[in-house]
Amino acid sequence: MTVELYEITIGTSKDTDIIDLTAMVGENAESSTIQEGAVFLFTPGSTAALTTIEYESGVIKDLKDAIARIAPENLYYEHNERWGDGNGYSHVRASLLGPSLHIPLVNGRLTMGTWQQIVLLDFDNRPRKRRIIMQVIGD
Amino acid sequence: MTVELYEITIGTSKDTDIIDLTAMVGENAESSTIQEGAVFLFTPGSTAALTTIEYESGVIKDLKDAIARIAPENLYYEHNERWGDGNGYSHVRASLLGPSLHIPLVNGRLTMGTWQQIVLLDFDNRPRKRRIIMQVIGD
Amino acid sequence: MTVELYEITIGTSKDTDIIDLTAMVGENAESSTIQEGAVFLFTPGSTAALTTIEYESGVIKDLKDAIARIAPENLYYEHNERWGDGNGYSHVRASLLGPSLHIPLVNGRLTMGTWQQIVLLDFDNRPRKRRIIMQVIGD
Repeated sequence: MTVELYEITIGTSKDTDIIDLTAMVGENAESSTIQEGAVFLFTPGSTAALTTIEYESGVIKDLKDAIARIAPENLYYEHNERWGDGNGYSHVRASLLGPSLHIPLVNGRLTMGTWQQIVLLDFDNRPRKRRIIMQVIGD
Repeated sequence: MTVELYEITIGTSKDTDIIDLTAMVGENAESSTIQEGAVFLFTPGSTAALTTIEYESGVIKDLKDAIARIAPENLYYEHNERWGDGNGYSHVRASLLGPSLHIPLVNGRLTMGTWQQIVLLDFDNRPRKRRIIMQVIGD
Repeated sequence: MTVELYEITIGTSKDTDIIDLTAMVGENAESSTIQEGAVFLFTPGSTAALTTIEYESGVIKDLKDAIARIAPENLYYEHNERWGDGNGYSHVRASLLGPSLHIPLVNGRLTMGTWQQIVLLDFDNRPRKRRIIMQVIGD
């Protein structure tokens, strides 16, 4: 059993940028010597989150719309009163979705569905440089 | 430290089928030689998710209602325009809930609350055969 | 590779108590001999959840408001009809947020963002004593 550490770095735009990480995660997993175990993903920061989705522009738009219904940008947020950076909605969205995710690694391969991709959701209201901490734990 | 792999397979119905996996996960955990570690669960596919709940028909209905308020079936979804399979709402729901979950294994037992069960939520609009990848990592 | 087990116990109040666990998790992580790996957190029980947030009173209030829009306390819940404990909304909220979370441990340190804290959300409608199972898995 070992732990391997990878770091993925990407630039994001504002307006709920949803970025497909699957190829980057998959490349790291293939370069890994671990065949059986799991990939653990985490994004540091309080205005981004991780999940999986079919990475298709229609459903990406649908997910953005659903998130905007849950935590609309133009509502009153107390965070904005105190900090003046206008991203109260970003914090709320990130907390609801969550920063961590794992994907099983079986026989050296990520076991996702055919139409299932790993995504970073950046909810902040300005472009950011994001880090995703990827760890492979296994044999 | 070792990794053990189990696969749970179940048939689901449409209309947001919520299925109690606790007994199946528990049986695998008991057959495991690992006493201290964690059970990692993941469902491949972009229209299903995992969480825990008190598996009681009232609150199962309440959760379905809450999810239907967040991503109603009969809204306009761009995914449906492109793919014509009518399950845009299923994708959105699955992404919001998330495909991965872990449960600690302490002294050979799952450490859930008395009224807490592990569930698969299948949001697709047709019956599916679902796989849940279960891995036990520990000593 | 080893597994270390810690348990955090805290008293909560009703009315969606959101409690910062970062210092407690950090102390345990520092006392750990594991330098590379991950911290796995889980809260037993069906009316609490875990996530991360900037622990600032404005955004804590904003998150509570968002959760109250998703699963309002004073809606009709079938759970309440059957059990009479009036906490149907608590169960729904906990299932949507989820009970498990992991944080990477790199070079002996938790890799969260500067403004990112680990929180327990207790949604129950009465004060509770909560346990958080913390496991460190790694080298």
